[in-house]
Amino acid sequence: MSLHASHAMDIPFLLSNLLQGAARHHKHGEIVSVIHGQTVRHTYADCELRARKLAQGLKAMGIQHGDRVATLAWNDHRHYEMYFGIPGIGAICHTVNPRLFVEQIVYIINNAQDVALFYSADFQELVDKVRPHCPSVRHWLCLDSADGTAPSDYEALLAQHAGDMVWPEFDERSDAFLCYTSGTTGQPKGVLYTHRSTVIHAYAVSLPDAQNVSAMSVLMPVVPMFHANAWESPFATTLTGAKLVLPGSKLDGASLHRLIDQEGVTMSIGVPTIWFNVLSYMQQNNVRVPTLKRLLLGGSPTPLSMIEAYHALGIQVTQGWGMTETAAMTTTSQPLAQHRDVPLKEQHRTIYQSAGRAVPGADMRTVDDAGKEIPWGSKQPGELQVRAPWVIKRYFNAPADATTPDGWLPTGDVALIDEDGYMRLTDRSKDVIKSGGEWISSVDLENLATAIPGVYLAACIAGQHERWGERPILVIEPREAATLTEAEVLSALDGKIAKWWMPDAVIFIDKMPLTATGKLSKLELRNRFGTHLLGKS
Amino acid sequence: MSLHASHAMDIPFLLSNLLQGAARHHKHGEIVSVIHGQTVRHTYADCELRARKLAQGLKAMGIQHGDRVATLAWNDHRHYEMYFGIPGIGAICHTVNPRLFVEQIVYIINNAQDVALFYSADFQELVDKVRPHCPSVRHWLCLDSADGTAPSDYEALLAQHAGDMVWPEFDERSDAFLCYTSGTTGQPKGVLYTHRSTVIHAYAVSLPDAQNVSAMSVLMPVVPMFHANAWESPFATTLTGAKLVLPGSKLDGASLHRLIDQEGVTMSIGVPTIWFNVLSYMQQNNVRVPTLKRLLLGGSPTPLSMIEAYHALGIQVTQGWGMTETAAMTTTSQPLAQHRDVPLKEQHRTIYQSAGRAVPGADMRTVDDAGKEIPWGSKQPGELQVRAPWVIKRYFNAPADATTPDGWLPTGDVALIDEDGYMRLTDRSKDVIKSGGEWISSVDLENLATAIPGVYLAACIAGQHERWGERPILVIEPREAATLTEAEVLSALDGKIAKWWMPDAVIFIDKMPLTATGKLSKLELRNRFGTHLLGKS
Repeated sequence: MSLHASHAMDIPFLLSNLLQGAARHHKHGEIVSVIHGQTVRHTYADCELRARKLAQGLKAMGIQHGDRVATLAWNDHRHYEMYFGIPGIGAICHTVNPRLFVEQIVYIINNAQDVALFYSADFQELVDKVRPHCPSVRHWLCLDSADGTAPSDYEALLAQHAGDMVWPEFDERSDAFLCYTSGTTGQPKGVLYTHRSTVIHAYAVSLPDAQNVSAMSVLMPVVPMFHANAWESPFATTLTGAKLVLPGSKLDGASLHRLIDQEGVTMSIGVPTIWFNVLSYMQQNNVRVPTLKRLLLGGSPTPLSMIEAYHALGIQVTQGWGMTETAAMTTTSQPLAQHRDVPLKEQHRTIYQSAGRAVPGADMRTVDDAGKEIPWGSKQPGELQVRAPWVIKRYFNAPADATTPDGWLPTGDVALIDEDGYMRLTDRSKDVIKSGGEWISSVDLENLATAIPGVYLAACIAGQHERWGERPILVIEPREAATLTEAEVLSALDGKIAKWWMPDAVIFIDKMPLTATGKLSKLELRNRFGTHLLGKS
Repeated sequence: MSLHASHAMDIPFLLSNLLQGAARHHKHGEIVSVIHGQTVRHTYADCELRARKLAQGLKAMGIQHGDRVATLAWNDHRHYEMYFGIPGIGAICHTVNPRLFVEQIVYIINNAQDVALFYSADFQELVDKVRPHCPSVRHWLCLDSADGTAPSDYEALLAQHAGDMVWPEFDERSDAFLCYTSGTTGQPKGVLYTHRSTVIHAYAVSLPDAQNVSAMSVLMPVVPMFHANAWESPFATTLTGAKLVLPGSKLDGASLHRLIDQEGVTMSIGVPTIWFNVLSYMQQNNVRVPTLKRLLLGGSPTPLSMIEAYHALGIQVTQGWGMTETAAMTTTSQPLAQHRDVPLKEQHRTIYQSAGRAVPGADMRTVDDAGKEIPWGSKQPGELQVRAPWVIKRYFNAPADATTPDGWLPTGDVALIDEDGYMRLTDRSKDVIKSGGEWISSVDLENLATAIPGVYLAACIAGQHERWGERPILVIEPREAATLTEAEVLSALDGKIAKWWMPDAVIFIDKMPLTATGKLSKLELRNRFGTHLLGKS
């Protein structure tokens, strides 16, 4: 052990240090927000001053180190300022997902015991519903106004302070953010990110093999700031001085295309469904976005057809994997040195279509039912477990660690890891289809189905079955005006999968149900169609 | 303060974790070494196993946590293994510069109280000279053999162990490396890098705006591993899985060109003199290196003419600045977003020719003689001070911190910082030319002189002067076969500088004296020519 203080400078990893660095070294670096249809521009120096005013306001309100302060907000500069102003004084920024049900939001606010809540005027009705049930919240402050011009509670608070505070220093292991899991199984659980974990992750996600962020980059996160800190992208731009484009609430293909074009976006991140819409818009209107070079998609698997369609437009699609507990971004499907001479078509298939290899600093393994590690390269799927300095050890208010005795986080995902460390998700534990004791990968069936012309979205679920226990059911949302039959779908799958993987039913629906985070809701599909096969075998 | 353990995983920044990550995630990633003219290939997995055997050997030799173990070695895989094997057990890897005088090496080893020393067979004669004067060193082990085939002490040590040790965990603030300053002023001082500072720096230097390292990169450090850890490049490749090419002892233009070509080097770093030789070789032999995309040069200023000549070959030249106390790499001259539309020619002049802006995580300021901070953008030069998690706080065995009371390291460099944070060195404090109370920049004069056709190297020193105190003397090493006169040089400078900056003398020499780290030795030039002007005014 070291017997004395460090010989290196003791500069703690604090969010306030990160933001001050941007304000000083990238004072012209821009944060562009779309709020109520208006494009608003700030610099890092502007936002640092405003975050400091906010911090002073919070202190004046009596907010203490460790207190939880909630946000119900879109991706815009005020949310960005709260990302730094709240943790900057040692309080915890609790980002609430406004797409949850009212009961879930009430549960989460009470579980967190939030003392203050900042909300966008768009959520006034929601706030009116939850407010009576949340006695811990002493302060309810509106961030903006419905027309974007009238002064808000937030702006009034900032106006009361000069921003002449010096950011306090404290232990870098202090909690900075609280973000609840979506609670598809049981009640939502509170996930905490620390200052240290967030700043280390900012370095990791800025690396060339992750989000590849330089001061010349223009990064637009199309993943909500209330969802795993928008995959850390706001911290990556703050670290490097890149331009940050925050698209607000309008995430349709036309709006995103316009913003990419207007701001010269070079890199974006998000879920595949969003980027499917952008692709469709560009194809239908025959428009291009020459500045955009790379997309990092995650949350659900990206169909190969979409990877190839974007590639044809000169845009590289990379897949990433993560979850709330890993602050998202823990893998990316970037190639290794040995792939330098592999044809791109083959790379797309084998590399980009995987869920990726570990971002530098992270580690992955799969374990069998007995918890024993499965060697990389094995064909036997197992539960995915991860390790990284930005991965959670213990949930908020939990009596015990969430990790295994040897320090890994079980993820609930079922995966294969090849011998080079590329991981492929075969299922969520709860989505697994077990037919006659053997696993069928819903993800593989979905990927194949999505590549069929006429298919817009596809989900494969386990249907209860008298003889086999479970059998696959394929649920399809067709493209507009597409005419597609069950026979055509099955014939398109024929020869590409083992016979016993062939779905027992193909069901067409008008609109795929989505979860609060924009993913396909297999839970709802199972509720609607899970017994579809019973009595038919 | 946090009242409980961190909610994030407590994974310390240890060098052993870094190397284990590479061995697991980049097991085919290559480390290529040139040893005695032979190209030797290892993988990260090979070197991790060998480093673990070394660690076991060190423990068997009785090496303890905190003990200093010295290296006298070239850039090759064994030096790389010592970079991890020695600190991996908590000992300190002391990289000794073999180009120092015998007396300096003896001083350094005794000051460090090294307990063991590993040396390349190339340094046998040197070792024979220093050994009798270094009683603290209990073990002297030869790394290789003169012909590269006979078994060495080092290989014998490794052969005795199975590599079945588990790397120990300890405080990330523990010292990992000891590297002495070149001691141009006074005795050399010991600079310590910690595990934490080294791993954080590995992330920082791998970023797109620094060394830009991905798993597809092929990085060749042409800066010695005994000099500020080769500017952290071996750690950047280990973090990202890039191929590391270690060129050994032959650093002439032909050897480096061959190695770049053979290994597909994409990025290299080094001092400008080395890369001037490579450029000359390529121009004279009309050969190209299509894989090479970027050079990061530092140690002394790069002439604009060389930046433009490399640019014409499709190679971007970036300048960086650092010193032993900052583990080198603390700035790079990469553009900012606002330079996106600036013509390249202008970028070269204003951006690439600066010594750069801070690498993410670092900060810079200049102070006046009273220690007061000079605002960025001022035309008044001041002493450069720096701050970063990888910058030294206290020298080895020093009784007090080397930093200012507010936590900055004074560098001894004189600099200007523009309003965007780009730093330009105007002088080393000790190189300053003060004529009639006003500063003349030796660096500016050298840059202009190097651009004159026929000039190979130029150094500007202060000549003592009866009337003005000091006046500039320009010392020039002409290119081979060039005929150049004092009048031609002065006429080439005329109109480009203020009249009173015009050198009082131009002196031509056959061979510029170099320091042990390959820089122009202004100290020796001052000793030879410092009184040249006396009695002439």
